[in-house]
Amino acid sequence: MLKLRRLATADADFEARFSQLLAFEGAQDAAIEASVARILEDVKRRGDAAVLDYTRQFDRLDAPSVAALELPKVRLTQALAGLDPDVHDALVVAADRVRAYHERQVLQSWTYTEPDGTVLGQQVTPLDRVGLYVPGGKAAYPSSVLMNAIPAKVAGVAELVMVVPTPGGVVNDLVLAAAAVCGVNRVFTIGGAQAVGALAYGTATIPQVDKIVGPGNAYVAAAKRRVFGVVGIDMVAGPSEILVICDGKTEPDWIAMDLFSQAEHDELAQSILLCPDAEFIDRVAVSMERLLEQMPRRKVITASLEGRGALIHVRDLEEAVALANRIAPEHLELSVAEPEFWAKKIRHAGAIFMGRNTCEALGDYCAGPNHVLPTSRTARFSSPLGVYDFQKRSSLIQVSPEGAHSLGRIAATLAYGEGLEAHAKSAEYRIPHR
Amino acid sequence: MLKLRRLATADADFEARFSQLLAFEGAQDAAIEASVARILEDVKRRGDAAVLDYTRQFDRLDAPSVAALELPKVRLTQALAGLDPDVHDALVVAADRVRAYHERQVLQSWTYTEPDGTVLGQQVTPLDRVGLYVPGGKAAYPSSVLMNAIPAKVAGVAELVMVVPTPGGVVNDLVLAAAAVCGVNRVFTIGGAQAVGALAYGTATIPQVDKIVGPGNAYVAAAKRRVFGVVGIDMVAGPSEILVICDGKTEPDWIAMDLFSQAEHDELAQSILLCPDAEFIDRVAVSMERLLEQMPRRKVITASLEGRGALIHVRDLEEAVALANRIAPEHLELSVAEPEFWAKKIRHAGAIFMGRNTCEALGDYCAGPNHVLPTSRTARFSSPLGVYDFQKRSSLIQVSPEGAHSLGRIAATLAYGEGLEAHAKSAEYRIPHR
Repeated sequence: MLKLRRLATADADFEARFSQLLAFEGAQDAAIEASVARILEDVKRRGDAAVLDYTRQFDRLDAPSVAALELPKVRLTQALAGLDPDVHDALVVAADRVRAYHERQVLQSWTYTEPDGTVLGQQVTPLDRVGLYVPGGKAAYPSSVLMNAIPAKVAGVAELVMVVPTPGGVVNDLVLAAAAVCGVNRVFTIGGAQAVGALAYGTATIPQVDKIVGPGNAYVAAAKRRVFGVVGIDMVAGPSEILVICDGKTEPDWIAMDLFSQAEHDELAQSILLCPDAEFIDRVAVSMERLLEQMPRRKVITASLEGRGALIHVRDLEEAVALANRIAPEHLELSVAEPEFWAKKIRHAGAIFMGRNTCEALGDYCAGPNHVLPTSRTARFSSPLGVYDFQKRSSLIQVSPEGAHSLGRIAATLAYGEGLEAHAKSAEYRIPHR
Repeated sequence: MLKLRRLATADADFEARFSQLLAFEGAQDAAIEASVARILEDVKRRGDAAVLDYTRQFDRLDAPSVAALELPKVRLTQALAGLDPDVHDALVVAADRVRAYHERQVLQSWTYTEPDGTVLGQQVTPLDRVGLYVPGGKAAYPSSVLMNAIPAKVAGVAELVMVVPTPGGVVNDLVLAAAAVCGVNRVFTIGGAQAVGALAYGTATIPQVDKIVGPGNAYVAAAKRRVFGVVGIDMVAGPSEILVICDGKTEPDWIAMDLFSQAEHDELAQSILLCPDAEFIDRVAVSMERLLEQMPRRKVITASLEGRGALIHVRDLEEAVALANRIAPEHLELSVAEPEFWAKKIRHAGAIFMGRNTCEALGDYCAGPNHVLPTSRTARFSSPLGVYDFQKRSSLIQVSPEGAHSLGRIAATLAYGEGLEAHAKSAEYRIPHR
């Protein structure tokens, strides 16, 4: 019997229980932090030798050199060629759709000229080299390779270096095939904090990158946090979440399965349903009870739903949207009659899945948008991974002689006000003498 | 006698000396880290009471309540009205120019419809509430208020909460005037890690924000790093830098003063000149020697130039650009005959100042572009502060019945491949039965 948390906004204790539901703090483990700091320092100092040592220790892989840990390109194309035709086609179509969507995100350089001839703008350039971390073992998802690699390639990143641990030498062919589809340039079978360190600092064999993206375990996350500043990083993701708003007119089984699809990721994942129809909520609960038995990952689903899930009865959809904006969910399903109307009222969400047809799973794989999304309420201030994360801007300023005159006086006035004489003089030099 | 570092790319020891010049590691002080962690924890737990205690302790300000530390709005407009007319006008014109430039950065929502009726896109929304940290005392720059507040306001941020410490009760009227010009909504005279904590967690009096921006001392920087994830933060800035590429045809005094204008910020600031004309470099050195005497901040300038500055003789401008791309400078001046030609070859720079008229100081105050720029080689992967830092995106996905069919099959195939049965089933439910 699935013990589901049931809340209603009309209940006196709703606020307290709702706050408790949202409270989640990703604890930073001091032992992991210390271990990661030591590994990074060692990789920085000893380079390849340290990478080899840790790979031997953690992945039981005894390589004569880091070069021997690089997979030849043909290994990737072989993996792709060896796929079951259905899977091959699904992967290629998914990649094409993800690419087509991301091509719409490319930022362009721009300038404008003021009446006096002064030119202002921004020059947009891609990052030179990006590192892509891919977890080994059970959490190795080919879709994750697509979602991280394709935006980088669309941005024009010249070199994409993938690292993937292969504990005991076990290689995931689906992951390699995905790398082939995306045009990943180099692949090293290393992982953990040592791989993050190698990418951040560079070694004799592994080139230094400008940014590291991709999911990983607690060691990888801690290592990414520590090297931030030396290189860029993407968000350090928390547990995955789904919030479903349903008007009570969708098939209960569909909603139940959508909640499961998030819960099956991880025991800490969070699935919440908001609905104004109490009877429908009961029907979803019955569906969940029945469908759970068929799920191979029912243990994880049960732990996730009982630990962090909730079915919440709301007064109306307006109230549901207000709660959604407080939650700022990673995934939001609007399983309602007029999704366009309600989507406009959503201020914070990683991705909005609109209408009864649009289950989150489509977005996870092949709809086109990225599945790397802000978790843990960070949709309040951050965005899905995109091409824009692999481009950067340089301001362009070209002041005309007239502009040097008018701007020079303003700058000098303000610089003197701030006590910065050299700034003022430097501007005044450019004022033409008449 | 100014002891300037002179390098030439033709020298045998150039690579070693150049690497040494670029090596800079912002040490993280363990004592500061521990102190900041304690303060943040205390503010999170005790809220207003903790803020009052630390403000009493660090700023010698004994207020009866946090509400008493809020400045009434009229205090800001009074500060603006009380300015010297020249300064008033300079501030207003600078703000107008910064606003006009940033209005070109506003991101728009977009969608597109596929042939089968599936709609994909991104919905762009502003952050709800932003905290702006402004340092107290000597480093209180009104221009910094403009550069941080205006992009937030242009983005549509509804509430901008400024914090500025006033040690001993000393208020900087220029800073308040700048806040008035920018439409800052609330101002609290608090600072340090306690102000960052109050903005990140919220207290009974101070509202929780979604992002904290603005410069600060080591305590503020450490606090921002620690609250990152709970709220967004801007970059934690390192020392400021300028790289000047000159073809040897600009007035040597101008170049000397441009190098000074960076050096006067901070003893750790870095000013570097690249030039293919050895004789011109000598003339710049002579100018620097002569001009230094007139500089009120000559002590800081000397320490900065002798500690981290360099005059570098290069073979040609092509080589200068290659070095610039290795340095990825915060500020890059192209004091050359054809700045448009050379700017296109720059891959990494925070801001590019093109042509002999365009000194960095114009960009610091009033040209329009932001003066909050990536330092310490982070221009390899990051951008000037902009409107885009105060907006975020939500993916939009609305799948048509036909789309649910075709996408459902692909998603299910890939989900089964990843062992995620609930994902697969959730997608398959949407495939219309025929």
